[in-house]
Amino acid sequence: MRVLLRVAYDGTEYCGWQIQPGQKTIEGTLKDALIALLGETVELIGASRTDTGVHSLGNVAVFDTNTRIPAEKICYALNQRLPEDIVVQESKEVSADFHPRHCSSTKTYEYRILNRKFPIPTLRRDTYFYYRRLDVAAMQKAAAYLVGTHDFASFCSVNAQVQTTVRTVYDCQVEQKDDLITVRVTGAGFLYNMVRIIAGTLIQVGVGAMQPEDIRAIIEGCDRTLAGPTAPACGLTMIGITFDEEKY
Amino acid sequence: MRVLLRVAYDGTEYCGWQIQPGQKTIEGTLKDALIALLGETVELIGASRTDTGVHSLGNVAVFDTNTRIPAEKICYALNQRLPEDIVVQESKEVSADFHPRHCSSTKTYEYRILNRKFPIPTLRRDTYFYYRRLDVAAMQKAAAYLVGTHDFASFCSVNAQVQTTVRTVYDCQVEQKDDLITVRVTGAGFLYNMVRIIAGTLIQVGVGAMQPEDIRAIIEGCDRTLAGPTAPACGLTMIGITFDEEKY
Repeated sequence: MRVLLRVAYDGTEYCGWQIQPGQKTIEGTLKDALIALLGETVELIGASRTDTGVHSLGNVAVFDTNTRIPAEKICYALNQRLPEDIVVQESKEVSADFHPRHCSSTKTYEYRILNRKFPIPTLRRDTYFYYRRLDVAAMQKAAAYLVGTHDFASFCSVNAQVQTTVRTVYDCQVEQKDDLITVRVTGAGFLYNMVRIIAGTLIQVGVGAMQPEDIRAIIEGCDRTLAGPTAPACGLTMIGITFDEEKY
Repeated sequence: MRVLLRVAYDGTEYCGWQIQPGQKTIEGTLKDALIALLGETVELIGASRTDTGVHSLGNVAVFDTNTRIPAEKICYALNQRLPEDIVVQESKEVSADFHPRHCSSTKTYEYRILNRKFPIPTLRRDTYFYYRRLDVAAMQKAAAYLVGTHDFASFCSVNAQVQTTVRTVYDCQVEQKDDLITVRVTGAGFLYNMVRIIAGTLIQVGVGAMQPEDIRAIIEGCDRTLAGPTAPACGLTMIGITFDEEKY
C-alpha cells in the first residue's frame, strides 16, 4: 500500500529535507526510522523539499510498503523511533498512484519576523529577528500586489532550473501581534526560495527602502536583482498542504 | 553605581539561574560576561532564581560597578559577549540601596501547555506537551480559587525552607488559543515550585481528576500531597517583574 505522512519538524539542526550524503536531513532521518520500523527498504517522495533551517508543521511524504501495520497506526510507532525535533502528525493509506508533487495542491507557508529592539531567546529558532521598525501597513499594501498568477522570476533564486516561473499566489497576508509580524502566503506551488524572497522584499518595503507599488515593477521586470534579499531560513515554516483532488 | 539588568533567556541548556560549581547557569554566564566587559569582579543579585529549564522574558538582576560605561549602554556591550540564548533587554542605573529581593514587587509567570494529539517540534522547548484533552472552563474556575492571600503550603515543594508559606496571588488566568493553553499567574512573590505546582494541579482539574472547588480544600489542607504534581520546567516562563517603589 501507499502511505501518506504529515510531518512536523524543527529544521534548526537539519540540512533541509532532501537526503544528502554525510548530512543530517529530515528525509534521511525519516527513512532510517521507517526502515527500522518496517524491516524493508522504502523510498520516500516528499511534497516540499524544504531548505536547511526551515521548519514545518505538516510537510507531506508518501512511501510504498508491504507492512501489515495499519496505515493510521504507523505514525505512533514511527514517532517512537524519531528524535524529538521530528514528529509525524498523521499517517494514512492513499491510492497507489497518488504523488504529492504531481497532484495539484495548495501550500501555505508562514514567515515570522520579530520586530523589536532586542531578540527574545525563546523565539530565536523559528523567527527572524529584525531591529529596524517595520511599517506593517506598507507591507500589507505591498503583499496585495503579489496575489494572482504572475511570472515570479524576480522572486526565484537564480540557480533554480524550472520549466516556467509562472506561479499562482492565492493569498498573501501580513499580520502583526505585538512585536511579531507574520507573512502568510498560500499558493498552488512556489519557486525555489520564493517565500523567503517575498519576505525579504516585504521587509524592504517595511523599512521604506521600497514602496508598496514598486512590487508591480519588480514582478514585471522578471529579474531577481530587482527584488529584496532572501530572508534567513529560520523565519520560515511550511504550515501545510491540501491536495485539490484528495484521492483517498 | 548600581546597575539593574532585565534578562531574557531560553533556559533549556542551563542548570537554572543560580551559580553552581561545574554547572552552566544563567547567573554564571552573565557574571563571566560582565567581568570580561568591565574588567572588575562583580556580584550579581538576582530577583528570581529560576530552576533548570525555566525560561524568562525579563528576570531582574543588579550589580555594583565602577565602570565609566553609561548604565543604559551596558546591555548592548554585554549582549556582544553573551550566547544567543541569553539577551539583556535593558540596563539602567538604580539607587545604591535597591535590592531586587527586598523591594516589594509584582512578578508574572506563564505556564504554557500544548494540548493536542501530537507534539509540535518547534514548540517543544517552551511548552509542556499534554496529550489528554483538558477542560479549560474547569481550569478557569479552579484558577479563581487561587487568587488572594492564602497559606500556599500545599503549593510549595516540601524541601523548601521559608519563614512563611503565606503568599498573595493577584491574578490567575487560564486562556486558550487553538491548541495552546496558557496559565498566567501574577503575585507579590512565589514559593519554590509554586507556579509549576499550580499548573500541575490545574491540569488535574482539566482532565477531571480533581474538581474546581477542590482547590479550596487543597489550600486549607496546607499539605503538599493534596495538590497535583509539579508540572515540568520547560513550560514555565518568567514574564517580568515590576517593583512597587521603583526607586530610580
